[in-house]
Amino acid sequence: MRRLIRINMGAENPEVREEPIGKYERYGGRGLTSAILSSEVDPLCHPLGEDNKFVIAPGLLSGSASAMSGRISVGCKSPLTGGIKEANAGGQPSQVLGRLGIGAIVLEGKPKKGDLYKIEIGRSGVKVIKDNSLKMLTNYELVDKLKKEYGEKIAVISIGPAGEMRLSAASVACTDMELRPTRHCGRGGVGAVMGSKGVKAIIIDDSDTKHLEPKDSEAFKDANKRFVSGLQKHPVTGQGLPAYGTNILTNIINEVGAYPTYNFKEGQFAGARKISGEVQAQFEKDRGGNPTHGCHRGCVIRCSGIYHDKDGHYLTKQPEYETVWSLGGNCAIDDIDKIAMMDFLCDTIGLDTIEVGVAISVAMEAGILKWGDADGSIRLLNEIKEGTYLGRIIGNGAEYTGKAFGVDRVPVVKGQGFPAYDPRGSQGIGVTYATSPMGADHTAGYAIATNVLKCGGFVDPLKPEGQIELSRNLQIATAFIDSTGMCLFIAFALLDQQDTFQAFLDLLNSFYGWNMTVDDALEYGKDVLKMEREFNVRAGFTSHKDRLPKFFYKEALPPHNKVFMFEDEELDKVFNW
Amino acid sequence: MRRLIRINMGAENPEVREEPIGKYERYGGRGLTSAILSSEVDPLCHPLGEDNKFVIAPGLLSGSASAMSGRISVGCKSPLTGGIKEANAGGQPSQVLGRLGIGAIVLEGKPKKGDLYKIEIGRSGVKVIKDNSLKMLTNYELVDKLKKEYGEKIAVISIGPAGEMRLSAASVACTDMELRPTRHCGRGGVGAVMGSKGVKAIIIDDSDTKHLEPKDSEAFKDANKRFVSGLQKHPVTGQGLPAYGTNILTNIINEVGAYPTYNFKEGQFAGARKISGEVQAQFEKDRGGNPTHGCHRGCVIRCSGIYHDKDGHYLTKQPEYETVWSLGGNCAIDDIDKIAMMDFLCDTIGLDTIEVGVAISVAMEAGILKWGDADGSIRLLNEIKEGTYLGRIIGNGAEYTGKAFGVDRVPVVKGQGFPAYDPRGSQGIGVTYATSPMGADHTAGYAIATNVLKCGGFVDPLKPEGQIELSRNLQIATAFIDSTGMCLFIAFALLDQQDTFQAFLDLLNSFYGWNMTVDDALEYGKDVLKMEREFNVRAGFTSHKDRLPKFFYKEALPPHNKVFMFEDEELDKVFNW
Repeated sequence: MRRLIRINMGAENPEVREEPIGKYERYGGRGLTSAILSSEVDPLCHPLGEDNKFVIAPGLLSGSASAMSGRISVGCKSPLTGGIKEANAGGQPSQVLGRLGIGAIVLEGKPKKGDLYKIEIGRSGVKVIKDNSLKMLTNYELVDKLKKEYGEKIAVISIGPAGEMRLSAASVACTDMELRPTRHCGRGGVGAVMGSKGVKAIIIDDSDTKHLEPKDSEAFKDANKRFVSGLQKHPVTGQGLPAYGTNILTNIINEVGAYPTYNFKEGQFAGARKISGEVQAQFEKDRGGNPTHGCHRGCVIRCSGIYHDKDGHYLTKQPEYETVWSLGGNCAIDDIDKIAMMDFLCDTIGLDTIEVGVAISVAMEAGILKWGDADGSIRLLNEIKEGTYLGRIIGNGAEYTGKAFGVDRVPVVKGQGFPAYDPRGSQGIGVTYATSPMGADHTAGYAIATNVLKCGGFVDPLKPEGQIELSRNLQIATAFIDSTGMCLFIAFALLDQQDTFQAFLDLLNSFYGWNMTVDDALEYGKDVLKMEREFNVRAGFTSHKDRLPKFFYKEALPPHNKVFMFEDEELDKVFNW
Repeated sequence: MRRLIRINMGAENPEVREEPIGKYERYGGRGLTSAILSSEVDPLCHPLGEDNKFVIAPGLLSGSASAMSGRISVGCKSPLTGGIKEANAGGQPSQVLGRLGIGAIVLEGKPKKGDLYKIEIGRSGVKVIKDNSLKMLTNYELVDKLKKEYGEKIAVISIGPAGEMRLSAASVACTDMELRPTRHCGRGGVGAVMGSKGVKAIIIDDSDTKHLEPKDSEAFKDANKRFVSGLQKHPVTGQGLPAYGTNILTNIINEVGAYPTYNFKEGQFAGARKISGEVQAQFEKDRGGNPTHGCHRGCVIRCSGIYHDKDGHYLTKQPEYETVWSLGGNCAIDDIDKIAMMDFLCDTIGLDTIEVGVAISVAMEAGILKWGDADGSIRLLNEIKEGTYLGRIIGNGAEYTGKAFGVDRVPVVKGQGFPAYDPRGSQGIGVTYATSPMGADHTAGYAIATNVLKCGGFVDPLKPEGQIELSRNLQIATAFIDSTGMCLFIAFALLDQQDTFQAFLDLLNSFYGWNMTVDDALEYGKDVLKMEREFNVRAGFTSHKDRLPKFFYKEALPPHNKVFMFEDEELDKVFNW
């Protein structure tokens, strides 16, 4: 049975308690972070106070030999939204924690003094060590230092300066296969909460760990084989993503007119092609980088990549579509090298690229920077690192930045900045932005799949018909997938190929000795969403928070000149199941 | 019949529409601002957007010859709380608008471009004039300029640089009898909303206006006589307030241990005596100022005053108790001259002294300034004027400042900073802070009167018994008084002297030909509160917002070592009537 590691960071010498997972047994990943928060945290506590908890949970299949099972969830009450938050990332930590039999790490309390700690986790146990020499190191500097101390057989979960400053756009970094801090639990200011617990880094020792044994090894192996071949035969997971990464979307979303630019004033960006995945992949090939790469062992989709600068030196991992949009297209920036530099800066400072990019575009709307000013944006990111006052404004996200400069066109739901898809150009993703308990979040119910990519059928992006049901079903399925440790990108194949969905369930069933059906999986997803929504209700959220900002209902978006079309009553039906 | 002046600031040339007060006839002051907002504004609109309205309303008796009737209310959806907001002030504009027969000015829409306007109102009508020469003038500079242009027979309602920058602590200034911008509708960022409408100043021409005629002149005169003599015989309104102003409270509140200092860590301040009303009044006398002065014609309490600097030159109006506390005692500053300088700066920049002082103390908790650093605080106020990034952080209030610096002890309810009374030292005022639809606001139900000053009986400040009912009754009575244009300080006499309450009602009844009883007055107050609470519900507020921050329930306050004692269920009973 998996175990929980609870660490009271409020004690003079932080206390470690290990206990069986107990009543949380059926949960992993997002399901587990949300179950623990829902059951143990006062929804009215201050997000940065001693009563909040910071939960890190590998998924149900993390630690097994299953392909794609490397996602890790972190959860807490969010300083950005004021509600429950789960953010997940790839990289190595999830599988290593899984192999160590750890269901979740729960950071509780808050250090009385301003000391900084690191936590060592390995087969020999858990140690919490005060180490103020780590203060204000960037993620890359930190990992370099830890490598010297611990060698290369580690995985690291860490925060950069943004998390230490408890900024609401601070992320939690996870190291990848090359031991670089490139995979981020980005959204909702989770890094600020880890920072408030005084924890700079969790160093997980990879040595002598083995895959966990499934209950039924043969069935598991067979399921994994069917699962992998299903992923490989689907055009998105087998071709598009491996070849170009997520940034294949720039041209696609721009062509359908759902690419927000100039802070959601237009739906197509003239410079899109210059920052597209096709151009990016070519640069990666030409300069000795790598456009086809996995972010964790066992990944067969390999949408990740490695981006080199003009001189052929490593600059950053391949920037994701949403990053290229937020720090690029939405700010009218079309220089892919500078965007890659910003991706590196966000990774090393420990920032959510989406939130910070949307904040910068709001600052541009306020006239703080000119549209398209890439060097100015880079300067702003460095100001966040330095903790200047302007840096702290931008580093607290889009809504905060809007308030600093009196801007009333601020694309947020529940305080969280919009991702890279305009809800007027894809009505379905707008329903997800409005209603997800996480705030505006594309991954929470990725309607783009069906509105644009025609996975799982087709629902016309410019019409309201079918979008409520689409978003509902995707949100339910996502809440389940996010609990398993599986990369969400398996969903493209799952939506279109029933046998791949079955193979996925067979992985879980053979691993745990369960008999989960598709219906059970959907009930599981509903259960997770229900816990999350109830937490938010107890935090004072009402249906009024399940709305887009007014200007999306009033300003028509070129080129289709549509507004967001949903009455309040329709949005309130998303969770009527 | 009074009339409404509606101005569409969103039109190319702002359009003025005059119309009868119509369905709002029974309302004035706060009742009228809340009725108009409740009926006409979408509670989910952006506070700084075109759908919010900015309402300015003299009270029911403003413009009459009644004593004490010089309060003016402004209302809007608040950028600070996100809910409905009314803030009121003394000074001259209320009576002049009343004499002109104006029930309310309603600013609607929002200029497309960034132009700044002034509005001239007089017997000859209403004119809206573009005047970008006024940009970023301080309130004192502005009024000086307007005096040169319009002469001395005007009253002015204006915003300073803070309002133009749309900061959430921006106030709306009203000129006093000396034509100085010293009386402020302070709370909730009302100045930011006036700024978002592009209106810098409203110049009201006082010439050739006469008191409005009551329906029954004789009865009115008689009621006014009884009313005035009632105020003069009560020890608070007849002696304490005239002699020392509101700052008489510093020693009183400090002695009972309800004086918050070091950001609500302690309940008594060693430097209190040095900044007390007694010391302040002595300085005023010695330096040629004036400790006994009225802020508007017809004031018989005269709690206002004039403060001169060491060289005998005018520095500012006599700072109020809450200002001396927020910019003084709560920041551990005990230099009354420097506090007076800060009072002047807040008046001229157009800032709520309470919100900004609480923000500065939060910044001190974060280590941005040292406790007691008066010069540093003055520098911060000047940074707000300059619009520096740090200035914008502080100028957006306590909660915003806490977020900039990762502070989790932030004394706010509904986003609004606590005033000058610790809810652990006066449990009754804590109930008002928690439950008022305005956010933490002492004036909304001033339980200090009965907890400390023993007006209206005595309810032990350190015990929960009787506080819910006390706060409820005071909130109801206040909502009524705030609608009449009467200064709230009449309440001290009203609480203790039934005949003074009757004289007050007789003023209204003889003026309007009404037959209002005490019960009717209370029903009126309930009606206003109900509109306000319903607006907030439609804005997404729940009972969860009617709570103090958690640390008031956990940290005991010296010297009495009490926490705030109310269960959620008890707080929810405040509005069960």
